[in-house]
This record gives sequence, structure tokens and C-alpha cells, in this order.
Amino acid sequence: MTEQQKVAAIIVAAGEGKRMGGVDKVFAPLGGEAILMRATRPFQKSALIDQIVVVVSDEHYEKCRHLAGKGEWSKVSEVCIGGRRRQDSVAAGLKKLGDCDWVVIHDGARPLVTVELIERGLEAARETGSAAAAVPVKDTIKVVGGDEIVYETPPRQNLRAVQTPQVFRADIIKEAYKKAKKSVTDDASLVEQAGYEVKLYSGSYDNIKITTPDDLNLAEVILKKYEH
Amino acid sequence: MTEQQKVAAIIVAAGEGKRMGGVDKVFAPLGGEAILMRATRPFQKSALIDQIVVVVSDEHYEKCRHLAGKGEWSKVSEVCIGGRRRQDSVAAGLKKLGDCDWVVIHDGARPLVTVELIERGLEAARETGSAAAAVPVKDTIKVVGGDEIVYETPPRQNLRAVQTPQVFRADIIKEAYKKAKKSVTDDASLVEQAGYEVKLYSGSYDNIKITTPDDLNLAEVILKKYEH
Repeated sequence: MTEQQKVAAIIVAAGEGKRMGGVDKVFAPLGGEAILMRATRPFQKSALIDQIVVVVSDEHYEKCRHLAGKGEWSKVSEVCIGGRRRQDSVAAGLKKLGDCDWVVIHDGARPLVTVELIERGLEAARETGSAAAAVPVKDTIKVVGGDEIVYETPPRQNLRAVQTPQVFRADIIKEAYKKAKKSVTDDASLVEQAGYEVKLYSGSYDNIKITTPDDLNLAEVILKKYEH
Repeated sequence: MTEQQKVAAIIVAAGEGKRMGGVDKVFAPLGGEAILMRATRPFQKSALIDQIVVVVSDEHYEKCRHLAGKGEWSKVSEVCIGGRRRQDSVAAGLKKLGDCDWVVIHDGARPLVTVELIERGLEAARETGSAAAAVPVKDTIKVVGGDEIVYETPPRQNLRAVQTPQVFRADIIKEAYKKAKKSVTDDASLVEQAGYEVKLYSGSYDNIKITTPDDLNLAEVILKKYEH
């Protein structure tokens, strides 16, 4: 992208957090600070990001609306309420975007994202118009049939676990969402289904998604590693 | 299996632990006790296990040989030195097995295995002769080409991350290792390649494999959860 191009970020934090055992996965403290605040900060900090849209559930809407546009959230131009599925929430965020050339989509439940990871994604997306952070898969993955009988063990060296940030040319992601028919687990899948190439770039094993109390504990462990 | 059938376990702990940053991944303490001792104990405890073979690297051989056959390792009939690849180590262990009908193979780097997980595997293996512990995959997995361009996003609901224990009829696993040509990342893969069906059974997200210092920290977090 050129310096003239505008970049917007959508932070998706509308999930219900059913697996958090009663802990609020958006505002639970991590290293003494709310998960969502940590997830948003690198976008606020990066000089390449012009605008941030935060998508939350009903219960967090008022709180986030008050934070928007001020202090640490000065780039947050819009807060909106998400939908049932993750992709419904991203769709809601896309509708709130101002004029922009690129869109960076990030999970609010990934608080350990860094400025570098975001900016590396913007760089990677130049090539094809779409890029997603990913790491090599450590586990052996098997494809099963309905009876849990193994159908296939795909070669691990070709497998990546994708994360966010995922970065898209604004026209591509908007078209992909317009064409979307199926339920998907990440935004890049819709872009692939719309016929575009997606480039994976090097994410980080530390960039975990917090969905269970164990994940939150692990995030504390990872944070401490950086403090040393 | 019937009560008359004999079950042997192979605990594979011959990896170099290159990613442990100098920490000995076999004898590093976890909750005050060596990883390998924890990994072995449920096999020692289970009434269904008759014999244990422990496969280690050169550097741990003498220490393990002295532990074998005594006290907490009374079922450990053999200690042997592994090979370059994980599958070479398992092959070495298979050669040391006494008379048995079933073989349970387990990673020495998975210290949070339980008696229940082992016995559930033995139960599951009745159906097809082969069973592996596995959990649903949480991440979105993508298959890439050499240029890191996404080739496919397989539907996540059909994906499982396999673990150990993996349980096999002795004749099946021996035949699979005899026929083995390719490098694989788990034993079930060789059994699949030999033309046998492998059934996956419900593993545990807590049954992590320790390959990095972060994993060891996470294992401590998981252990503490059980102490509460």
C-alpha cells in the first residue's frame, strides 16, 4: 500500500464466551488490563492504521461506546453490536467502515497481537490483496468421517493454523462478504470462496485466542515471558 | 480385549528436546516431579497394563535402566535407546516387547495422561484393532502450497488433533512398522498406510505435549487446576 492509502481495522469481540466459565472474556483482566483493551492497543499505536471499528455484544455496547474516540481509543470511530455468528459480527463491522483501501480484521480475544504483526500483515497483503497470520501446525491432524474413523492424515508440513490479523483489500473483503453463503471460521475462507488468493504470513505462537480460563492462564504465562 | 489378553506399553522419550532451550524435557520437574515419571505412572497404575518398555536417548539410558523393574517402575521390563526419528524409536521399542496382544504407544512428553485415558483407548481399539486419542481442532487449519498461498480450508468439524495414547493390536502395529516407508508424525499414520482402519477416541485438551518451555509452564497451570 502507499502512504496515501487508508487502512481500517475491525476488532471483533462479540462472542458469547460460553467456554469461559462465567469469566467475561472481553473485559477479564490480563496482566491487570482488560483483554479487549490489550487487543486494541497495537492498532491504536500503529501509524499505518487510520480508523478502528469495535464490534461487541449487547452487554458491552454501552461501555465500549463511552470509551470510543477518547484517549487510548481515539482511533475508534465506531462501536457496533455483532451478530450470532462471528461472520455476522464482521459483516456488521464492515458496514460501519468509513472510506478505506484496506481492512485489517482481528479477534478481540487475541490480546497478544503486536504492532509488528499487524504491519507485517499489511506488507504481506500487497502481493495478492489478502493475507492472514498463521503458524505451522504442531499436532498431527486427521480428517475423520462421522464415525470417527480416520479418513486421511494430511501431511503436516503443508498445514497452517491461521490466526488474526487478517488483512484484505477493502473491495475484496466487501465482495467476499456480499457473496458469502456458508458458515465459516475465518474471514479468509470467504475470500477464498469468492475466488481470490490468500497469502499466509508468519504469525506467532504467542498470539493465542482466549476461549477458556486455561487460555487466560497461558496468556499470563506468555506475558510474563516478555516482562523478563 | 479379554482378561487373558496381554497389554504392553511403549513410552517414547528419545526426542532431543531442541526447542526446550536447554531444559531437559525428559527429567525436567513438573509439579516437583520429572516429566517422564509422570508420563509413566498411569501405565504403572492401570491394572490392564502388563509390561512397559521405555525408549530414551543415549544421555538418559543409564539413569532409566537403574529405575527399571523397581518401585514405581516395577512394570518397566525394558529400557532401550531410540533412533533419529520418533518412528525409529517406536520401532526400537517394538523389538523389545515380550509376548503381548495389544500395544499402547505413548509420548513420554505427555505427562498429564491418565489411567482413564489409557483404558478408554483400550476399549476403543476393540472395534477396529487400532485407536488414537484425539480432540476437536480449535484453530482454522489451511492447506498451503510452497508459496504459502492457501490451497484449501478443510471443514473444521471433520478435523481432529491426535495425541497419544495410541492403541493397536500387536500384529497390526508390527505389520505396519514392517511395511513403513515414509516418515510420519504418529503411529496411527503407519497403520492407516498399511490399510487398517483407525478409530479416534476422546482425548483431553489437558493431555498436552511438552516441546517448549511455554508448554511446561502451561502444564504447571493445568496441574494446579486439578489440585484445587
